[in-house]
Order: sequence, then C-alpha cells, then structure tokens
Amino acid sequence: MRTTFELHGFSSIETRAVEPLEHLLSKGETSKEVYTLHRLQDKDGSRPDFGLHFDLTVPLSRYVIENAGKLTFPFKRYQIQKVWRGERPQEGRYREFTQADVDVVGDGSLSFSHEVELPLVMVDALSYLPVPSVVVHASNRKLAQGFYESIGIDDIEGTLRAIDKLDKIGEKAVEEILVEKVSLTSEQAKRALQLAQIKGSDASIADRVYNLGARGELLDEGLNELVNLVENAQALIPGSVIADLKIARGLDYYTGSVYESFVGNHEDLGSICSGGRYDALARQGNKTYPGVGLSIGISRLLSRVIGGGHIHASRQTPTCVLIALNNDCDRLNAMKTAMSLRHRGIPTDVSPEPIKFGKQIRYADRRGIPYVLFDTEEGWQIKDIRSGEQISIDILQWMPPAEDIYPQIVEQSE
Amino acid sequence: MRTTFELHGFSSIETRAVEPLEHLLSKGETSKEVYTLHRLQDKDGSRPDFGLHFDLTVPLSRYVIENAGKLTFPFKRYQIQKVWRGERPQEGRYREFTQADVDVVGDGSLSFSHEVELPLVMVDALSYLPVPSVVVHASNRKLAQGFYESIGIDDIEGTLRAIDKLDKIGEKAVEEILVEKVSLTSEQAKRALQLAQIKGSDASIADRVYNLGARGELLDEGLNELVNLVENAQALIPGSVIADLKIARGLDYYTGSVYESFVGNHEDLGSICSGGRYDALARQGNKTYPGVGLSIGISRLLSRVIGGGHIHASRQTPTCVLIALNNDCDRLNAMKTAMSLRHRGIPTDVSPEPIKFGKQIRYADRRGIPYVLFDTEEGWQIKDIRSGEQISIDILQWMPPAEDIYPQIVEQSE
Repeated sequence: MRTTFELHGFSSIETRAVEPLEHLLSKGETSKEVYTLHRLQDKDGSRPDFGLHFDLTVPLSRYVIENAGKLTFPFKRYQIQKVWRGERPQEGRYREFTQADVDVVGDGSLSFSHEVELPLVMVDALSYLPVPSVVVHASNRKLAQGFYESIGIDDIEGTLRAIDKLDKIGEKAVEEILVEKVSLTSEQAKRALQLAQIKGSDASIADRVYNLGARGELLDEGLNELVNLVENAQALIPGSVIADLKIARGLDYYTGSVYESFVGNHEDLGSICSGGRYDALARQGNKTYPGVGLSIGISRLLSRVIGGGHIHASRQTPTCVLIALNNDCDRLNAMKTAMSLRHRGIPTDVSPEPIKFGKQIRYADRRGIPYVLFDTEEGWQIKDIRSGEQISIDILQWMPPAEDIYPQIVEQSE
Repeated sequence: MRTTFELHGFSSIETRAVEPLEHLLSKGETSKEVYTLHRLQDKDGSRPDFGLHFDLTVPLSRYVIENAGKLTFPFKRYQIQKVWRGERPQEGRYREFTQADVDVVGDGSLSFSHEVELPLVMVDALSYLPVPSVVVHASNRKLAQGFYESIGIDDIEGTLRAIDKLDKIGEKAVEEILVEKVSLTSEQAKRALQLAQIKGSDASIADRVYNLGARGELLDEGLNELVNLVENAQALIPGSVIADLKIARGLDYYTGSVYESFVGNHEDLGSICSGGRYDALARQGNKTYPGVGLSIGISRLLSRVIGGGHIHASRQTPTCVLIALNNDCDRLNAMKTAMSLRHRGIPTDVSPEPIKFGKQIRYADRRGIPYVLFDTEEGWQIKDIRSGEQISIDILQWMPPAEDIYPQIVEQSE
C-alpha cells in the first residue's frame, strides 16, 4: 500500500499516538470511545489532559495547523498507524487496530478533481492485496441535501443518519424512524427512500433522480459532481466506482462526495474503506483547510482474509537455508558462510547445536525452512528437505529458486 | 533493518500497545514511567488494569508464554514498535519513541552461540543505515559476579549499579558510592574500579583480569565466554565488538553477556543499542525460557542524524513527474497517462489546476518534483526543471534516471 500511495504522490507522515483530550473531543459523538492517559503516580481524580487517537483525521487536522507554514498545498499525505477505541470487541472490530488513510488538504480551496482521484488511489492500492476486488459506492452530500430541501425536509442531518442505517435495519425500520423520530411526512419518507434506491455508473442516474420530482441548484451541483466522478472513474478503472444514493455516512462534517467500499463476496464485513469531502478539515483564525480523504480498516480486512483462512504464509520463518553443524569447531566457518549467503540476499541461519543430522533436519522441517546446507568431505552439499534430494553445489554461485528465497503469501481458492 | 533481521532468520511479530498493569509492573523499578489507560466515562478513582508498554521485552515475555505451544524453539523474533515512558523529555529522549528489538528465546536452555550471534546482527543492521560505524562494548555478568565474590564483595547488584554510573559521574564519585553506600572496603572498591578499566578485543584481557588477583569457576566461565565472543566477532566483522569491563547494565535480570553500543563521533548520545543474556525471560509453572536480546533506540539515533542535519531527504514528496494541464478537458487523458507511468514504477501526479504553465512549474519546483510533462501539439515533452531543458519523448518508453525516481537520503559530509 505504501508503494501505491507513493506512486500517486502521497507523502508519508506519522503522528504521535497521543493528542490533547480537548482536541480529540472537539468532534463530539466519540467521547465514550476515547482512552485517556494517566501517569501511574498521579493522584486519583486528576483530570486527564491527553488521550489515544481514535482515528487519523483528528491528528491530521492538528498536524496541518501546526505545520501550515512549512507545507505546500494541496498537501497529499498518507498515514498507516494504530488507532484505539473503547468499543466492545467482536469479529473485525478491535480496541486497537490499524488504519491506512489518504487525504488531500487544500489551503482555502480544493479542486473537485481530488474527489475523483482519491477513491481511485484506494482501488489501485487494494488491487495489489490478496483480496477479492473492491467496489467504491459513492454519493454526494450536496445532492442529498438539495433533494431533501427541495421536498421540504428540514432535518437534513437526522434524515441522513436514518438513511445510513438502511443496510443494518432495513427499509421498514428506517421509514419508521424517518416519520416518528425525524418528523418527516410519510410522502417525504417515501421519496427519501426512493432516492436511496438509485444506483448506477453513468449519467442515467440524473434522469432517475429528477424523475422523483426534486429540483434545485444544490441538487444539480451534487448530481453533476457524482456523474463526473462515476464517468471518469469508469473511464480510468472500469467497475471501480458506482453511484449508490443510499450511502449517507453518519458524520456531519462531509460536504461533497461520500464513499463506502465493499469487498466482493464479503459484503457482510461492511464498508472496509470510507470517507469523503469535508470543507473544513481544520480552521485557524480566518483560515479554512478543506480536504478529501478515505480510510481503510486494515485490521478488519486482515481479520477476514487471514482469520477466514483465505491466505496464509508459506512458512513461519524468513530463513531459506539452515547450515548444519558437524561439530562446534565448525561454527565459525558456518557463520562466515551464512554471512556470504546473506550478502547475496539469501536468508540464512546456522543450526543452534551440532546435534545428529536427523535432528538438525527436523529443526528445519518444523519451521518450513526448505534447504539444509552440509559441509561434507566432498565440499558443500544442499538438501531440499521437501524432495529429500541432496546435491553438491558451488557455494559462491548457488541460488535457490526465486519463490523459495522469502516466504510467500499463499491464496486459498474459495 | 527489517531486511537485515530477516536475512538473519528473525521472524517479525507485532504486539498490542497495551499490557496488563500487573505484568508491566512485575519488573519493578519502572512504575513511575508507566502510562495507565482509562475509559473516558469510567468513574474517577477506579484502579487501572492496563498500561502502555514501556519496552518490547515485557510484551515478548507475555507473547512467549501465551504462544509457547505454537512456537518452535529457539524462537528468533524481531519487533519494531513504539513504546511509551513518562520521562521528562530532552534531546534524544521522548515520551513516545520507536525501538527495534531482536531476541532469541529458548525453551529450558539456550546455546551460548546466540550471545555471539546477536550483537553481530545489530552491527550488520546498523551498517546499512546512514550513521557512523557502531561498536558494541561487551562484558559478562558471570565474570563480574565471579570477580566480586572472589574479593569478598557481598552486594553484587549494588556494585554493578554503581559501576554502571562510571561514564555519567566519573571514577571518584563511583568510588565514594561503592565505599559509603555499597559498604565495600576501599581495597575492594579500588579493585572493582581496576576491573572496570580493562578493555580489549582478544584473549589478553584474561591475563589482565587474573593479574588483579581474583580466581574462581564463575569468573573463569565468564571470562571464557567474553573471550570467545570478542574473538569470534573479530573474525567475522573486525572492529564490531570489544570487551569493555565497565559495562554493567543496571537491570538485575542479566545473567551472561551484556552489551552497550556507541556511535563513532557521537559517544555523547550514550548507548544506542543495549541488551544481554537473561536466564528467565519468562517463567510458567516449572518452565523457564532463557533469552538473549538487544534493543536499538531508533528515535534517539534519528534525533541525532536527522535533527543534527547529518542526513536529509532529496525532496519532500515522492512525486517524480508532474503532468501539466492545458485545460480541464485534458484531465482525463492526463490521469490515464499518470496511470501508465505509475504502472512502470514512476511516481506521478497530475497538476491540480489548469493554471498558467509558469505557475504549474512553480508548483513542481516548491515540492522538489524534478520533471514536468507537457502534452504539446508535437507530442509529449518533458522538462527537467533543475536544468530547464525540455525535450520530446516517447511516453511509453521514457524513464527518468534511477536516482530521480524516488527521493534519496542525502548525507552531509561532517
């Protein structure tokens, strides 16, 4: 992922795990999830000043303000780090987990083109991982807001939060919330749900939205952006991004494109890569820093592909060659030979004890080390312990086949 | 460092940042440095159960016990992670910092040969970093204990802790502590200090130790090990390890070789890579897991080489090529061209706005991007903005010089 992000021109940053609590809580909604930090000898009851970050967006916002004078905008950064949340652990959800974020941040303004660029960076990065292909489902906040306003809905946030629950609780339960809690008329609720059913990857989605009878400048703007996004994405990486108008994203700071992403055959995992456009990632004085970003839940993805047995490592140690010992006087020579094999890029280990050869071979076998090297009276011999074949070699020239040098990721056919 | 550790047959593990407080505190001495964790909504005054790890040895000990049934011993692992300590920050010392640890852990027993292997792994790994060469200074606990016991010293720990302060407070102050606090006779203190002056890289150190008049089996064993270590290290990587009998290491769990390491011309940084042999990394029931390991303080090392201006990056972005835009209709074609350059391994970015070419070139210049690509009526042209030279290219074939593709580490001559 680092390679892909850098090929797309994103710089790596790493921020400390700890942020001022005040800054962590300024986004609201998350207070119950934050772990606070104390020094062991501090008196009980002292108010905590610091907590562990629960995402990589809050640290980015602080970083941008602290370094605004040194950065060149638009600033493209990626960040792969642990984050912590005080949630109840369950499959794919941990209290400590790894996220990979990419964001582009502007100073005052930020071109819409980055809203097309960012989901494609993630699709490209994920395409090199041993996971089924990932599709980004996109919508647009201007579209949703313009539509809702046009049909007389006042509580835009409440409506979005209800629509965001569609996949979890179903259409009937969302309709109830819209009418009973968000105070929509049943006609408004019906049309909000009809909007959420629209999906597509070309300009025809515009007709379907307008057919629901809504009109307005904000709606036009959002629809234009969404069509621009899916058409360009289609032209660049076919099948990568589709318009899916039920994508709402619960958080209130998104102002343009919003994204969620699903892994083929593993839709039950939920979105593994989400984000959107926000007009104020950070503010300082009269300065505003808009941004667009996406975040991949690496731990959730790995919990499925590794935990589900879809991939495994071909061996548990990096060692490719074990040098057997005839006796302890051999050790220095074996260590020299190991050094020269390592200099040629072959992971090599020396047997820890000059025990019986059978035991030294079993030592290699238990770890999956494919080759054992013997210093014999006829010179160096290498044994492939999978086939049992043992041959004489020129120690200065011999190379194992490329696929044996390092452990490989083995994919199980599903 | 990961590459070197893997070439030496060490497997990577990563442990959670959080450990049970009880386990963190079982080593004593560190209680004031531990950060404890609380949930924000927890009532004040509840006793904390968890804290952030302050090193990578305590987590390894838990990991070995939890996974003993699945591991094959000797278990060779490396681990590069953040750790946290509630210390007062100063140059090279931070409350959050990165350590790189290598350890070999045995089940019940562990061959002495790993005490020769481990410091050489670190010297090899550090030799690929842009730092002056590093020398490991080694001593041996059996040697020190055997010597002290032989001259009638009872408080071995106290003597070691005083000797450990030699570099910081000088010989006179250490002598005072030895006599007044550790209750040595002035003759015992004198001889302990004479032992601490011995340095060398061959068997002659044995004569110099015996010349101080001490005798005993434990002393012989420790001296044999230390001579074996420096002679073998000398044969494998000349100048890598020297015997230095003032190396004491304050912690009481070391039982054999102990190591500290110093960077040429930067001895004032203190030891940047330390460790040793311990007979009980972990215990469970009647099982004991001995180990030998070293830990590099990555942050301290980087604070000096980066903070001191000894190295810097050749540019602040990974981008090698910026594709200029004539107008917004060009963008899709530019994004396609960027994709194909990236597929050939060239980090490429598309200009965010179709502004005047002069401004697009300044955009590249401010970031240190070396090349700007133009889609002209005569086909693709590339401008090297350092020389100003602009030439026509075949976009499917053109490659920048290898040193321009990714940012390079630039070393300043000292």
